[in-house]
Amino acid sequence: MARYVIEVFERELSGYKIVRHTVPGIKDIPAAARRIIDLGCDGVITLGWVGPGQVDKYSYLASSVGLVMLGVMTGKVIIDVTVHEDEAERPEDLKRIAVHRAKAHAENLVAMLKGGLQALTPKAGMGVRQGYPDVGPIG
Amino acid sequence: MARYVIEVFERELSGYKIVRHTVPGIKDIPAAARRIIDLGCDGVITLGWVGPGQVDKYSYLASSVGLVMLGVMTGKVIIDVTVHEDEAERPEDLKRIAVHRAKAHAENLVAMLKGGLQALTPKAGMGVRQGYPDVGPIG
Amino acid sequence: MARYVIEVFERELSGYKIVRHTVPGIKDIPAAARRIIDLGCDGVITLGWVGPGQVDKYSYLASSVGLVMLGVMTGKVIIDVTVHEDEAERPEDLKRIAVHRAKAHAENLVAMLKGGLQALTPKAGMGVRQGYPDVGPIG
Amino acid sequence: MARYVIEVFERELSGYKIVRHTVPGIKDIPAAARRIIDLGCDGVITLGWVGPGQVDKYSYLASSVGLVMLGVMTGKVIIDVTVHEDEAERPEDLKRIAVHRAKAHAENLVAMLKGGLQALTPKAGMGVRQGYPDVGPIG
Amino acid sequence: MARYVIEVFERELSGYKIVRHTVPGIKDIPAAARRIIDLGCDGVITLGWVGPGQVDKYSYLASSVGLVMLGVMTGKVIIDVTVHEDEAERPEDLKRIAVHRAKAHAENLVAMLKGGLQALTPKAGMGVRQGYPDVGPIG
Repeated sequence: MARYVIEVFERELSGYKIVRHTVPGIKDIPAAARRIIDLGCDGVITLGWVGPGQVDKYSYLASSVGLVMLGVMTGKVIIDVTVHEDEAERPEDLKRIAVHRAKAHAENLVAMLKGGLQALTPKAGMGVRQGYPDVGPIG
Repeated sequence: MARYVIEVFERELSGYKIVRHTVPGIKDIPAAARRIIDLGCDGVITLGWVGPGQVDKYSYLASSVGLVMLGVMTGKVIIDVTVHEDEAERPEDLKRIAVHRAKAHAENLVAMLKGGLQALTPKAGMGVRQGYPDVGPIG
Repeated sequence: MARYVIEVFERELSGYKIVRHTVPGIKDIPAAARRIIDLGCDGVITLGWVGPGQVDKYSYLASSVGLVMLGVMTGKVIIDVTVHEDEAERPEDLKRIAVHRAKAHAENLVAMLKGGLQALTPKAGMGVRQGYPDVGPIG
Repeated sequence: MARYVIEVFERELSGYKIVRHTVPGIKDIPAAARRIIDLGCDGVITLGWVGPGQVDKYSYLASSVGLVMLGVMTGKVIIDVTVHEDEAERPEDLKRIAVHRAKAHAENLVAMLKGGLQALTPKAGMGVRQGYPDVGPIG
Repeated sequence: MARYVIEVFERELSGYKIVRHTVPGIKDIPAAARRIIDLGCDGVITLGWVGPGQVDKYSYLASSVGLVMLGVMTGKVIIDVTVHEDEAERPEDLKRIAVHRAKAHAENLVAMLKGGLQALTPKAGMGVRQGYPDVGPIG
């Protein structure tokens, strides 16, 4: 998934330095995001893959709490891209979801870094989904 | 949903500056609320839309923990308006819930900012609901 | 529920100043408790009403984590009185539970403020319940 | 349960001052542990009783997060002895579990205070259980 | 499990001092990791064994939140090796999983300490599993 994110960043964030960091599992991601922020990065995108079991979901929850708290403590833009193995049955569908979601959130991060607080406001309430077709505006 | 909140604020919070900020998903809300607070805002209202799946609910939980901890750390009034896609089957019902809840909590935030610790005390224990009909007083 | 707590405080905490604060929902309670503590209060009792759905329970969990963390961060006595709508079917039973629990925990808070670390030790392991009949000592 | 812990401490921690503190429920334990630590204690053992319902388990989870975070924030040895009402059907079995677990963890706390980082290493991976028969070494 | 980790460290981390610390249960691990970090260690690997019950899983979740938060607060590399008793039925399978996972993550920790942010990047998205056969690259 990282490849697709890096492609977006290289194309749209000229002048930025891109730092990549790989960790063994999703629970290692929040500390890694902290290390990235400590290097001075303006934003972080995290890419995680979560298994189908209940324990995997608890690990997802713990990791999510960590990332959310890092955001609360630093105010940094940290976008969490997670693909759950039980979102689709066929590997090719999972891959399609992963690629679409990674690209879409990379675009979101770019927009937030370059466009400020309201960069994503035109999309608010429009039923935009990452990894699936958009569901359209509310109501 | 933001439109209805802004309408309430513009009508009832004259002299206040309203800051709007849009983020991709509910787990991005706590860090966004932190950024809003860092700008000097007196209060924050957050608007989130949560899917029907178990993972969506864990994301809701992680986001809620983050917002609650931000409130604990800062003491700021942060009111969380969340609509869950499985609260109703028909899109028009969901929208009605969302609009009612957003407006009602915008009024709550206004009251808390202007009226202090006991601004909402007359409503305590009266079974007031946001997004549904009130259920009436306890007992 | 607040009325019953205030009655206990007024009767047993003469010389104390009682501060009341009302918020829209249970997730707003931890930040409110923080504001109460910031005013210099020695202790806090929180009164919450939780719905029967799974999302309500997650909100309860997030609120509980916030209150527990506030206690960890400050060391203050913060007693959490929560009534769950699914504890009883009949409104009069729910009300009875709420009133009993609120009063009992108000007494607990008074005892802890006035009696120190071991004020409640005589009740330890005695199966004392708040809102239900006591179950008697262990074993 | 406290009696059995105190017996172990009095026998094995001569020269230590023992501080006892009782609180109404399990969610009050983390703040109480913080107060104990603030008094200068080297370690804390907590004794909690958890009901069989789902809400009880969420309260257990919130309390556990609080105690774990207190440990993370202070590095202190805080051993959590919890008995769940649904671990056994007969009160005498529950009591036996509670007494055994309390004593065993009191011994663990003593060992950690007096023996340092590797005091419990001989027991690692040996399937030692508190409140139940040991299950024997792994593999 | 610790033996296999220590073997890897002794072979691949010459010049490093290895500190071992044993605690009674998984909820004691995060504070222990904090103590290890306070001693000046560059990284921590934690080894935990989790029972099959729902309460065990909540304890796993609380422990995981603690470890993740320690990582967020310190930025340190803390790799969590957990074996769940319900991952396999036969003790010999559980042991095989435990040994493989402990060794694999010890190697991961070594790589991260010696190789920096991208030490594990060649393995990203390759479906590498610890304790099970690898599942192969995504898509």
